[in-house]
Amino acid sequence: MSVFPRRRIGVGILGCGNVGSALVGLLEEQRSAIAGRTGMELDVVRVAVRRALRDRGAALADGVLTTDAASVVNDPEVDVVVELIGGVEPARELIAAALGLGKPVVTGNKELLAGHGADLYAAADAAGVDLLFEAAVGGGIPLIRSLRESLAAEPVRRVMGIVNGTTNYILSQMTEHGAGYQDALAEAQSLGFAERDPTADVEGFDAAAKASIIATVAFGVRVPAAGVYREGISGISAADIAHARRLGYVVKLLAIAERVGPVEDKPELAVRVHPAMVPMGHPLASVRDSFNAVFVEGDAVGELMLYGRGAGGRPTASAVLGDLVDAAGNRCRGTWTPIGDLGEAVVCPIGHLESEYYINMEVLDRPGVLAAVAGVFGRHGVSIRSMEQEGLGQQARLVFITHQAAERGVQATLGDLRQMESVRGTPALLRVVGYSS
Amino acid sequence: MSVFPRRRIGVGILGCGNVGSALVGLLEEQRSAIAGRTGMELDVVRVAVRRALRDRGAALADGVLTTDAASVVNDPEVDVVVELIGGVEPARELIAAALGLGKPVVTGNKELLAGHGADLYAAADAAGVDLLFEAAVGGGIPLIRSLRESLAAEPVRRVMGIVNGTTNYILSQMTEHGAGYQDALAEAQSLGFAERDPTADVEGFDAAAKASIIATVAFGVRVPAAGVYREGISGISAADIAHARRLGYVVKLLAIAERVGPVEDKPELAVRVHPAMVPMGHPLASVRDSFNAVFVEGDAVGELMLYGRGAGGRPTASAVLGDLVDAAGNRCRGTWTPIGDLGEAVVCPIGHLESEYYINMEVLDRPGVLAAVAGVFGRHGVSIRSMEQEGLGQQARLVFITHQAAERGVQATLGDLRQMESVRGTPALLRVVGYSS
Repeated sequence: MSVFPRRRIGVGILGCGNVGSALVGLLEEQRSAIAGRTGMELDVVRVAVRRALRDRGAALADGVLTTDAASVVNDPEVDVVVELIGGVEPARELIAAALGLGKPVVTGNKELLAGHGADLYAAADAAGVDLLFEAAVGGGIPLIRSLRESLAAEPVRRVMGIVNGTTNYILSQMTEHGAGYQDALAEAQSLGFAERDPTADVEGFDAAAKASIIATVAFGVRVPAAGVYREGISGISAADIAHARRLGYVVKLLAIAERVGPVEDKPELAVRVHPAMVPMGHPLASVRDSFNAVFVEGDAVGELMLYGRGAGGRPTASAVLGDLVDAAGNRCRGTWTPIGDLGEAVVCPIGHLESEYYINMEVLDRPGVLAAVAGVFGRHGVSIRSMEQEGLGQQARLVFITHQAAERGVQATLGDLRQMESVRGTPALLRVVGYSS
Repeated sequence: MSVFPRRRIGVGILGCGNVGSALVGLLEEQRSAIAGRTGMELDVVRVAVRRALRDRGAALADGVLTTDAASVVNDPEVDVVVELIGGVEPARELIAAALGLGKPVVTGNKELLAGHGADLYAAADAAGVDLLFEAAVGGGIPLIRSLRESLAAEPVRRVMGIVNGTTNYILSQMTEHGAGYQDALAEAQSLGFAERDPTADVEGFDAAAKASIIATVAFGVRVPAAGVYREGISGISAADIAHARRLGYVVKLLAIAERVGPVEDKPELAVRVHPAMVPMGHPLASVRDSFNAVFVEGDAVGELMLYGRGAGGRPTASAVLGDLVDAAGNRCRGTWTPIGDLGEAVVCPIGHLESEYYINMEVLDRPGVLAAVAGVFGRHGVSIRSMEQEGLGQQARLVFITHQAAERGVQATLGDLRQMESVRGTPALLRVVGYSS
């Protein structure tokens, strides 16, 4: 005898692209297994698409497809809504409508949650229904649930993630094959790992949206997207990567959410996205190709890493399906997993942070230049840990690693260096990231 | 205004050793953060200990400590019971009593769950309360929740885990410093990573209990502990590790639960613990020292790995605390996370499995021996992929890697080889594990 009564749950899906069609297929394949384990028959009753005529790959019954997304949300047969349209509108309006009708929502919409998450979370809690979003960060990696539930009471110190597969693929190609940035990008584009306009990925916008969501979930606070400092990878050269490697580091684009003040109701956080030099022995250093991984440091749990496929139809659909089964089960039991009250975070500006830095610059190869450059570092209180000089004919390349220094001092140093007649081009800067203390 | 009414939840803890005292400390530290995020005040109202007079490190109010565990379970002030005694009795009886009283239970007791899990899971579902056990496998790693919830509907193919920190520490020392097994074990004992009687760890009993729990949670079936094939690491030599390394492999003790038949209501599984050769590029290969990691392969999600501290008071207490907050929240909302009906697994005996094998043996160094040895492999249908011969004076060492072969054929081969007068000692065998197909 089952502990559950058999129950039919109507699923409405908004958007049926890559992830949506994978979800429809997976629901069909796993239908009887889900029923066996949970007692629920998950039926896809309505699917909203932009154009009804496109072949969807998965066989859907007549009358399931519609171009009217609002009618899916309002359909009384639809018990749970899955939003896979992406972007802010009409996704925001549709999700708000579903929550208002007391229907749980599963979404993977990072842009929407980064920009309007707090309102939607509050609406879900007010309605007493689930708003689940595992697929928004890290594709199939069970990160959001781990942060929201397993680590709900963990004093998390820092979360650092490789959360953008495109940039990790590009950096891996540069690291492993010595490719330049433009060549690695072109290859990623030809393989479908990068968009024709790669800005959202390579300039860190995608990772910044995910950093905002991670910070909210890890620290239980609202983090305005505007509070996320952002640098992309388009300025990274093959030379930077080769230098980093020789020094024992791998360059990764990291999304970092970090507690910089004491644990309080209103924690002081630093949330940022930038390329960083990660020591080769660090678990994040071995995350290659388009894989994603998130490294969590907590006062009690110590070090955790969650690794997997951060994108792709089926991995992302797997995350959506996990949420869908959870939301459907909660709906049957008349409950939900609350997000809880989100406090305001005090966001620490990047200028207030400290780090070790890698700085690579070209200078005219003549007497006195090194002394002048070193003098600039000293004036801003930036202490040099190591320096390498490499002859380039008329010029020389100087590569510095600093001791722990204030970002403000380093930025002031770079500003002064750019003014020097003997410094050519723009010095490259990478922050060194290790274990938190 | 909070979406939750403030509510006080009485926590009863059975056992206050390493993990129990860390939990008491963590609850105290995180008390106001938990209240802020969930509205619940978690109060430790009773703690059962073996001897009341021992100093517990954490300051507990008068009257909290008792030596009468049953009184903790029965105390009407106790809403949630945390069992950290370990072993089968009296833990089983106390948990059953708590569930019978409608009190959710959090436990980290792998031995109990591996042996009596099915009855306890059924009792929890019948009572409609949580039985949560994140701490039973992988310490602070959010594995159980990920498998039970995020991957509830994922067609999991295989789960492979480094789930015993003691053996991983010993194997890491042998790999990185060329230490012999006995020296590495002695060092682990002196550092407190291994018990004075290390049998439960080094012979794989601990990992086998965890493999049984993983198989149940990943595949939704009962897996009798007797169905778990088990080999430990005490037979691994420094030479085996050095050979594996030269061939591009790292030796790890793995707990493996794998679907070997088609996906059905009654899946055919192979569940086993044995040392294995893992390719150096595999994510499990870089899991060093006493860290744990679990690698999950699913048809939809692809490859996932969860990595972290598999033991220790605070990491384990972190997992218990995550479960405790969840169980307390569910209790407030009058719900629970059902385990669901567990089917019977068909357990595939190890003899029916196939793998590639590493076989290392010493033979007399005289003409005709290699031909005779190769003939034995051939007679049992085991095809050799590579062979290396190394002179050892009067004797020679032969190291074989086979093609994919049936375990039965390989075991028959070893049986015959042991009978040969020219074969010295017992050939060593390691299974090669890669990516599942």
